[in-house]
Amino acid sequence: MSSITGKNIQISVFGQSHSPSTGVVIDGLPAGFRLDFDKIAAFMARRAPGNDPLSTARKEADVPEILSGLSDGRTCGAPLAAIIRNTDARSGDYAGIADKPRPSHADYAAFMKYNGFNDVSGGGHLSGRLTAPLCFAGAVCIQYLESRGIKIRSHVYSVGNVKDTPFDPVRPDGAAVDETFPVIDAACGDRMKALIGSVRAQGDSIGGVIECAITGVPAGVGDPMFDGIENVIAKNVFAIPAVKGVEFGAGLGISAMRGSEANDAFCAGNGKITTLTNNSGGINGGISNGMPIIFRAAFRPAPSIAKTQRTVDLRTGENAELTVGGRHDPCVVVRAVPAVEAAAAISIFDLTCN
Amino acid sequence: MSSITGKNIQISVFGQSHSPSTGVVIDGLPAGFRLDFDKIAAFMARRAPGNDPLSTARKEADVPEILSGLSDGRTCGAPLAAIIRNTDARSGDYAGIADKPRPSHADYAAFMKYNGFNDVSGGGHLSGRLTAPLCFAGAVCIQYLESRGIKIRSHVYSVGNVKDTPFDPVRPDGAAVDETFPVIDAACGDRMKALIGSVRAQGDSIGGVIECAITGVPAGVGDPMFDGIENVIAKNVFAIPAVKGVEFGAGLGISAMRGSEANDAFCAGNGKITTLTNNSGGINGGISNGMPIIFRAAFRPAPSIAKTQRTVDLRTGENAELTVGGRHDPCVVVRAVPAVEAAAAISIFDLTCN
Amino acid sequence: MSSITGKNIQISVFGQSHSPSTGVVIDGLPAGFRLDFDKIAAFMARRAPGNDPLSTARKEADVPEILSGLSDGRTCGAPLAAIIRNTDARSGDYAGIADKPRPSHADYAAFMKYNGFNDVSGGGHLSGRLTAPLCFAGAVCIQYLESRGIKIRSHVYSVGNVKDTPFDPVRPDGAAVDETFPVIDAACGDRMKALIGSVRAQGDSIGGVIECAITGVPAGVGDPMFDGIENVIAKNVFAIPAVKGVEFGAGLGISAMRGSEANDAFCAGNGKITTLTNNSGGINGGISNGMPIIFRAAFRPAPSIAKTQRTVDLRTGENAELTVGGRHDPCVVVRAVPAVEAAAAISIFDLTCN
Amino acid sequence: MSSITGKNIQISVFGQSHSPSTGVVIDGLPAGFRLDFDKIAAFMARRAPGNDPLSTARKEADVPEILSGLSDGRTCGAPLAAIIRNTDARSGDYAGIADKPRPSHADYAAFMKYNGFNDVSGGGHLSGRLTAPLCFAGAVCIQYLESRGIKIRSHVYSVGNVKDTPFDPVRPDGAAVDETFPVIDAACGDRMKALIGSVRAQGDSIGGVIECAITGVPAGVGDPMFDGIENVIAKNVFAIPAVKGVEFGAGLGISAMRGSEANDAFCAGNGKITTLTNNSGGINGGISNGMPIIFRAAFRPAPSIAKTQRTVDLRTGENAELTVGGRHDPCVVVRAVPAVEAAAAISIFDLTCN
Repeated sequence: MSSITGKNIQISVFGQSHSPSTGVVIDGLPAGFRLDFDKIAAFMARRAPGNDPLSTARKEADVPEILSGLSDGRTCGAPLAAIIRNTDARSGDYAGIADKPRPSHADYAAFMKYNGFNDVSGGGHLSGRLTAPLCFAGAVCIQYLESRGIKIRSHVYSVGNVKDTPFDPVRPDGAAVDETFPVIDAACGDRMKALIGSVRAQGDSIGGVIECAITGVPAGVGDPMFDGIENVIAKNVFAIPAVKGVEFGAGLGISAMRGSEANDAFCAGNGKITTLTNNSGGINGGISNGMPIIFRAAFRPAPSIAKTQRTVDLRTGENAELTVGGRHDPCVVVRAVPAVEAAAAISIFDLTCN
Repeated sequence: MSSITGKNIQISVFGQSHSPSTGVVIDGLPAGFRLDFDKIAAFMARRAPGNDPLSTARKEADVPEILSGLSDGRTCGAPLAAIIRNTDARSGDYAGIADKPRPSHADYAAFMKYNGFNDVSGGGHLSGRLTAPLCFAGAVCIQYLESRGIKIRSHVYSVGNVKDTPFDPVRPDGAAVDETFPVIDAACGDRMKALIGSVRAQGDSIGGVIECAITGVPAGVGDPMFDGIENVIAKNVFAIPAVKGVEFGAGLGISAMRGSEANDAFCAGNGKITTLTNNSGGINGGISNGMPIIFRAAFRPAPSIAKTQRTVDLRTGENAELTVGGRHDPCVVVRAVPAVEAAAAISIFDLTCN
Repeated sequence: MSSITGKNIQISVFGQSHSPSTGVVIDGLPAGFRLDFDKIAAFMARRAPGNDPLSTARKEADVPEILSGLSDGRTCGAPLAAIIRNTDARSGDYAGIADKPRPSHADYAAFMKYNGFNDVSGGGHLSGRLTAPLCFAGAVCIQYLESRGIKIRSHVYSVGNVKDTPFDPVRPDGAAVDETFPVIDAACGDRMKALIGSVRAQGDSIGGVIECAITGVPAGVGDPMFDGIENVIAKNVFAIPAVKGVEFGAGLGISAMRGSEANDAFCAGNGKITTLTNNSGGINGGISNGMPIIFRAAFRPAPSIAKTQRTVDLRTGENAELTVGGRHDPCVVVRAVPAVEAAAAISIFDLTCN
Repeated sequence: MSSITGKNIQISVFGQSHSPSTGVVIDGLPAGFRLDFDKIAAFMARRAPGNDPLSTARKEADVPEILSGLSDGRTCGAPLAAIIRNTDARSGDYAGIADKPRPSHADYAAFMKYNGFNDVSGGGHLSGRLTAPLCFAGAVCIQYLESRGIKIRSHVYSVGNVKDTPFDPVRPDGAAVDETFPVIDAACGDRMKALIGSVRAQGDSIGGVIECAITGVPAGVGDPMFDGIENVIAKNVFAIPAVKGVEFGAGLGISAMRGSEANDAFCAGNGKITTLTNNSGGINGGISNGMPIIFRAAFRPAPSIAKTQRTVDLRTGENAELTVGGRHDPCVVVRAVPAVEAAAAISIFDLTCN
């Protein structure tokens, strides 16, 4: 198993970078919900390549085609299936990769796992392209969550060492995220863009961090131990290629704090119980406490770079050099923002819809 | 659901801090494996309270009692069930907590989830005490993995701002971890102990980070997307109370790197394919590449501190103050080391035993 | 995996016939439910051996010991774990079986599955004794279902060719089931007892059928395809040793009917929609239609008989003869009635509690 | 959840009778297996409507379109997804059904489950049309099982009271099943056809039974309790609409036998251990014993008949009459034969492929 997640809803993702299509089956959606396809298209467009001179030159519309699950425009209780055709696939670009695995890409690991039968074109099933069906599923979950007052927002927290203004963990809704380049501080966004442009000019890539805030989740959501909010979000966010770390609330930095400093004091007012700070990221013991859920996902720089790299030739077992052709992002973080929101939405939907 | 994890083996953990016992059922172990109970006892002793003047004063032997799953001292294919009696429970210590939730503990979140019917004594099911059965399950998995050449080792990477020497990610087995206080650099361990002692004297607590290295996992283990090694380890490590972040390889720091710097070049030699660096932590696309698997878990400072804190009274809805009695660790990180190894072992067992 | 069932609640059963104990962990029970232990004991007594001169001579009280999951006598949201000690185990009785598998018992299949490491004593994990923890889990589910107006009742439908009066499928509650010998027609029960006595005297065993009726399930319960009511009940009822067939409503006999005869016409009256007949057993397309759910489970005669049988010697690979000692039921059907109700209750709980 | 089954492989089925397509995602197939699409097409043609004057007049080619999971014609480890377009859908035929549920069809149960938002056209997701993607998944599993020496064969055991010659449970491969009308005894097949024709002329339908034999499964397959072969096959076979009973080996009839009669004596010879009879249907304690696995599935007569029936009008709550138009099978059993084989194949694949 691998490409199925969820307990109350189950999301089954399929497709390869250059197969006829990618797609997703969403099983367990409540019946009677009317989907807004313009909103879904707008959400998916944020992920789609080719919209932005900074990203890969591959251009695809990412238009989902609904195969089942609707009746008169509403969910009907049957699994919702959608596919996204791969229209601009060029397998030829990847010819050399079959024998010379790209450093830090999944080529070698997949070769070993699948005894050489894995689809190498564009990374096959292990491609970032699989975030397209993930985003479709996320867009559906987001609409449903919004109808229940739950809102998910993200921004590029950092690119390399350039850091955006973080969310206020107690009141993340106070910050406006730019629509064209998802940062809070536009000037910071300009510095990120300049950095990405310079990295691209060097035939290199750069990593970054995405911060996500989920508001409106009532206290009491999440299960103890293995199905807590942190477990479920981490499980789903690590499905996005290139993520190497996930942290909640004050995150790794909390390890340097004292309890008296890290603890979020409870406070009553206006008939509500809140906390004065939110170092816990809205989660105690895996369960929501009613405060905003805050997490960050750290992305490695994309392994596909133009520079020549050292690798091995799997046919001969000898050391070799590799220069990767094809079309690649110098910084996947910008386009990954909706994927992180999608993973968050799927997680929260799964935990709240039962 | 909540307290069950795994696909190929399933681990079902039960118990509360002050219930008659905690325990675990392990379903799916191969038959015919002879368990070494001395090793299990030694492993669990590393977690047990009361062995160390720095930890909680609660003293319990943590001796597992096997209820089923063995025949003539070997696993017999039936679920292996073990319980650990709670012999030194003192529910009275927690009387006030029912109404005044401790800041950043799960009291309030659990109250909301379970409509006030949660077991408040010692945190109930959400207590660190539940890592005892987790450690039993981990100890069993570790023995089996070791028989297949897979080894799991951890150390306290940091307490507060005091940092131990990290593992060499390419050759973590080169470092010796101290048995009494699990650090690589003993002098650093002394500074950690001094810090913990001072924090305790202040009625406070302090966080830290545990680093774990898994060697001997062949290339090709792990599934794409939702069941990759990162997803599964993260899901299981977040089951340990107080973990707020999990990172692999170069971790969050990789987000500031260039691809040319972060990529781990492949290298052939001695009939093996390895990588020159290991910023990927042994994992590409969720699948092992044959290099050591390296991850770190960040722990928040324990929320239970002696200092008076602000909270609310759930009966009256008014603001209130709370001074927590009971017995608590100033730094849970030291005792959490075997729990992290257990979570890692359960994950790797689950991914490799099919 | 094997001994875990359920999605919304998960039931993890463990134990062997002669291990220190059997037991069960129930994860996912709602918090705040007060269990009536007298009722649980009464339910389990119906299964316990030794109450009846017709059943096995093994005498065990089957008293469950609660290890976790309660707080102040109510469920607290944590997994409910209970064990039943094996007090009257006599492994010696099974010495010869290790090498000479009993015909139609699981000895040989388990030997092959577990490479000879299976626990042969009393059938190990594959013993009817495992229905004790199943019955505990069922007794808990039954209490909860009854608090929601759902009632589960069963009777011995047949022993050999002696058939009891069946339930009226439209109004099964109209029939009273005898408490000491669970039949509707007491005279028929006497004939069954006579048949069982005669079979026992011959050192033989006899099969039978149990019929179960579940009332109070509202229309709309159950999921399509693989998680329909029929799928879930069948999956759980086949967990009871010796069951070889499960049928719903008119059952196998419906295969000889015309549609015009088998179809259950809808009928409105008293503000309710019912059906005039109930050949569907309350289920259409896997989903309840509001009518009583009716099913029958067919039990093979217990394979353990006193008569000498042909088998093979696994050490030598030669044909051999076997005369089974130990204590066995001539007819397991009577004691299996609560196990069938337990399996039904677990199924309905799992399908309705989300 | 609902439309996903399996542990080692997971089969996710989607589609409605009149949605753009039905389809299936198969996750967990081994990589490197070359599929024979001619064989798949031949298998699916046995299910497809319109091939036979006795079945529904709906004509559809049932040609699967592969969306992902292959690379160079072989499975590549990624999920295998296929869709089957619904080309001859006529939703208009079902206009009246939305308000007047067809007796014993799932219309009313689905209406209640989905609050009236279910897709009523052709039964929506609860249609027999969903056996098309099930058959695709089964055809894939069958090919893989055959490459391992496991063979699955079925025949129409009965239509109404007309019974075919049953399989010899010890040597089912001895019987040849007719390709055009799947019976062992052609004369019996003629009587079945005559019966079906006469039932159709009366605007009625008729039920039947399918018998399935699986040979080549080694001893030791299947897990105890909830994941035994019987549990898994029953769970998957009940996914086929109209199945109301499943029985193994001697089936319900075994309930009337003595142990001395039902027990299958072991016998050594030619270096193999077999049983002289096979009343157990190849399964003891849920685990295979190496003998052929034999089971039968009983189908109710299709609920859609031309005769006028009593129902209720869901808008008014009044009693009403219904005359169903559309195109329906007088006997679904003939076309259901490959669906039963598919369910069996999916089950055995899931139990043997780990």
